[in-house]
Amino acid sequence: MGSFPGHALPGSFFLCVGLWWGVKSSLWHLTRKNKSSGSTRLPSRVTQRRLEIIESSVILFLSVVGMVAEQFANSGPQLQLYDAERHWKDLMNWQHCTMYLFFGFAAAVSLIVHSSAAAPLPLDRLVLCLAFFNEGFLFLYHLHGRSLLDVTLHQLLLYPVFAQALVAFLEVFHRGNVILELMRSALTVLQGSWFWQIGSVLYPPWGPHWDQDDHSSVMFVVMCFSWHLMVSLLWTGMIYGIVNWVVQARLKRTPPMEMGLLSKTRDQESEDEAF
Amino acid sequence: MGSFPGHALPGSFFLCVGLWWGVKSSLWHLTRKNKSSGSTRLPSRVTQRRLEIIESSVILFLSVVGMVAEQFANSGPQLQLYDAERHWKDLMNWQHCTMYLFFGFAAAVSLIVHSSAAAPLPLDRLVLCLAFFNEGFLFLYHLHGRSLLDVTLHQLLLYPVFAQALVAFLEVFHRGNVILELMRSALTVLQGSWFWQIGSVLYPPWGPHWDQDDHSSVMFVVMCFSWHLMVSLLWTGMIYGIVNWVVQARLKRTPPMEMGLLSKTRDQESEDEAF
Amino acid sequence: MGSFPGHALPGSFFLCVGLWWGVKSSLWHLTRKNKSSGSTRLPSRVTQRRLEIIESSVILFLSVVGMVAEQFANSGPQLQLYDAERHWKDLMNWQHCTMYLFFGFAAAVSLIVHSSAAAPLPLDRLVLCLAFFNEGFLFLYHLHGRSLLDVTLHQLLLYPVFAQALVAFLEVFHRGNVILELMRSALTVLQGSWFWQIGSVLYPPWGPHWDQDDHSSVMFVVMCFSWHLMVSLLWTGMIYGIVNWVVQARLKRTPPMEMGLLSKTRDQESEDEAF
Amino acid sequence: MGSFPGHALPGSFFLCVGLWWGVKSSLWHLTRKNKSSGSTRLPSRVTQRRLEIIESSVILFLSVVGMVAEQFANSGPQLQLYDAERHWKDLMNWQHCTMYLFFGFAAAVSLIVHSSAAAPLPLDRLVLCLAFFNEGFLFLYHLHGRSLLDVTLHQLLLYPVFAQALVAFLEVFHRGNVILELMRSALTVLQGSWFWQIGSVLYPPWGPHWDQDDHSSVMFVVMCFSWHLMVSLLWTGMIYGIVNWVVQARLKRTPPMEMGLLSKTRDQESEDEAF
Repeated sequence: MGSFPGHALPGSFFLCVGLWWGVKSSLWHLTRKNKSSGSTRLPSRVTQRRLEIIESSVILFLSVVGMVAEQFANSGPQLQLYDAERHWKDLMNWQHCTMYLFFGFAAAVSLIVHSSAAAPLPLDRLVLCLAFFNEGFLFLYHLHGRSLLDVTLHQLLLYPVFAQALVAFLEVFHRGNVILELMRSALTVLQGSWFWQIGSVLYPPWGPHWDQDDHSSVMFVVMCFSWHLMVSLLWTGMIYGIVNWVVQARLKRTPPMEMGLLSKTRDQESEDEAF
Repeated sequence: MGSFPGHALPGSFFLCVGLWWGVKSSLWHLTRKNKSSGSTRLPSRVTQRRLEIIESSVILFLSVVGMVAEQFANSGPQLQLYDAERHWKDLMNWQHCTMYLFFGFAAAVSLIVHSSAAAPLPLDRLVLCLAFFNEGFLFLYHLHGRSLLDVTLHQLLLYPVFAQALVAFLEVFHRGNVILELMRSALTVLQGSWFWQIGSVLYPPWGPHWDQDDHSSVMFVVMCFSWHLMVSLLWTGMIYGIVNWVVQARLKRTPPMEMGLLSKTRDQESEDEAF
Repeated sequence: MGSFPGHALPGSFFLCVGLWWGVKSSLWHLTRKNKSSGSTRLPSRVTQRRLEIIESSVILFLSVVGMVAEQFANSGPQLQLYDAERHWKDLMNWQHCTMYLFFGFAAAVSLIVHSSAAAPLPLDRLVLCLAFFNEGFLFLYHLHGRSLLDVTLHQLLLYPVFAQALVAFLEVFHRGNVILELMRSALTVLQGSWFWQIGSVLYPPWGPHWDQDDHSSVMFVVMCFSWHLMVSLLWTGMIYGIVNWVVQARLKRTPPMEMGLLSKTRDQESEDEAF
Repeated sequence: MGSFPGHALPGSFFLCVGLWWGVKSSLWHLTRKNKSSGSTRLPSRVTQRRLEIIESSVILFLSVVGMVAEQFANSGPQLQLYDAERHWKDLMNWQHCTMYLFFGFAAAVSLIVHSSAAAPLPLDRLVLCLAFFNEGFLFLYHLHGRSLLDVTLHQLLLYPVFAQALVAFLEVFHRGNVILELMRSALTVLQGSWFWQIGSVLYPPWGPHWDQDDHSSVMFVVMCFSWHLMVSLLWTGMIYGIVNWVVQARLKRTPPMEMGLLSKTRDQESEDEAF
């Protein structure tokens, strides 16, 4: 992955996932909040479950594609761990494969949790926590013998990754807390945009190359990370605002007469919030 | 900011904020506690909300002033990140700007949370947590190549800063817990008084200069930090005591006859404690 | 224990305990979940308590055997701490003894907790937490002056050990949470399989020896640890699936007529979930 | 305090406090548990409050004595921080004074909390947490330039100290949890016995002196710390057992007829558990 596209690709993936999680969390939160005011036009529990299944299927599919690409693309290891002289071979590709494997596993478990009643509900957050933890864990031992700037850039990546793991773990106990869900969304956007930043600093596709051992550059990227955090927060806030505006617009057009129908389905709808 | 006023200014700011938070938290706690004994003379929910809006506006205003001052005061970067030869320029000022930016953002979010019903209530604590975290994060990478005493003084500053972030994060889940609120107030006072201490040790406006690499001085400033903590605790306790005394005095002067009126507004008043 | 069997033995022990905990947690969770559908064929509270007592007795017995073996096997210290010239002697054996001692203590406390009503119920998790903490604590100071690969392998062992301590501590406050119980089971399986891995890397019973200071080997074992984590999660998931399948099969054969009988015993059965 | 008595004195103090806390926690827990079985012979809420006040007064008194002794005993600093040539003087004594100051402050706050209704109840645990945190914080910066064995011995002391701070902080949110209270008692006993161990290793009052830089000695003291932990747990368990036995004995002698009287005072008695 020592290239600009190699960082831009996962970056784009996390940006999309973060955006989607922001929309989803805002929508479910506002649906729950406005349930009493007669909201047959808002998505129901069945729609929620269907969307979770689609989301998990897409992530599972992309993870498998990622794993296959890492193994069999132009110079991949093709499922071989060491060469004829018993030296380790293409460990980078194997590490990226392992990361994809955990995200694929998290998606598969989420698929089982939401499509059947067999597994306990908070399991989807726990496996998500483990997928992010595993990503951070592999990055942690990934930084041996690189330049100061390179190490700093990747260390900063560990902040959102481990924070995502922590937030997902807290969600095991505080499921449906909108603050935590929006936090997770913002951190995913941050991780995605920071991947782009890493790629553009280490392998600038345009403009001059950076001095890899200048301490001022390190100070700048640290501050730059703060700006990315700020942008990801503003972005998530904007998403929430737009969804809120759409929901309010739909509610105004709905006549408030189907209260009786709603109250019947309420128990069923709230079943996954209660855990 | 390598000067005495450069440390005394933020110090004074945090001292004022800490004092105000102490008064506010004590007052709301004692208002809730004495609600049943007929307290029409105590501030109502509407007053609380109005005060939150004023507080947020003042902090937002001061943050903007701080940012403008850092950029355009006598030798500021004037929104330029690098000079003609592409060397980073005035990164210190940019870092301080970034800190102000996060506090301003926290104030703006708090303003939205308390003036409309759109955003979820605990969001104001989360953004406060992030503002303090960001401050500590930038200070953490701020200490490269300084003297032992300088590094120790700034490392000690990280204790109250990260503790404030932690307390604000806990308040997301335990909103209205008076212990946490008073703790946050005391830590803010501690941060403010420690800024003064840093300024007076590194850039003594009077008296002799300190030996920057003497290990005894390091041992002394560590102990001195404990004393600041003790003073900030005593200070917060005194504030609580004074507010308690004022509230009790007002309650004695109020005739206990308007019980009926109060019970009507109770549900409405407790809405923000429930979250 | 500097040998392959010396690592395979505790590894096998933890694999068995992890397997058993997986079965137990799944079974109790599914019993609680299916209580309402008339489950006289599922194990009752009395069976649960009896199984806890058997489990604790077995662990206590094995711990005592382990301690005796460490002290009196071929070259053990035979309860002597130093030799005639006052040099410390066989500290390794003493350390392993201390680890067994804590696990034996945890088992003994669990025995008291489940066989009498004298001690508070969550105590069994606290002593389990302390037993794992103690294991990790001793390993932490165990790594002085070894090769890079050796240190890395043992440091990775600390992840499941301290995670088990953390999960057991959380169970003091969230008793009966199936997510935490399955997590603990998976971490125990991970610890067991990693013990096998350590033994087979440092003292390979077959095949060539590893280069102890090659950085690629370190990178490989880190990734290998991720694979062990994945396998332990899949394994625990499989256990849960099998137990679920067995429970569903038994429930189908049970006629749903003894509802009245069940509701009488419900209060009694749920007493240990309430804490 | 570089002497055997200088370590034995605080050690004995913590042993006594740990013992007392064990008795108190066990007694209150068993009183609450057996309330329904007619327990007029068990201590009432008023007795509890009175004991808390006595406890706080004793600790406050001892802290003041400790501070005065550190300042004015044979070679103390007599309230002077630096000598005529502006060199820091007797910083050790000042540090110990600061530790006593925080414990005295915690006792004073506890006195106010339990003798009046002005302060919020969980404050006594928060100040206790801060007193232990401050002790650990000062020890942390206390270890500069000592021998390996000395540093290890004092680092191990930080485990119980910071664990006590953590447990006291958790008690702010989980007040009256007997597991946490017994844990705090056991950790206090551990701290006390470890102070004795430090004194007897560094300044052996009898027997030969230890080799301060032998790595085997470091390994031994680490294991020895585990044994102290085990002994403190067994000790606390024994205290709980004895108190349980005494309470059961008293309950048997009490005729179960005053049920009516008890139910009247129940609400009042449980007021401090609710927080």
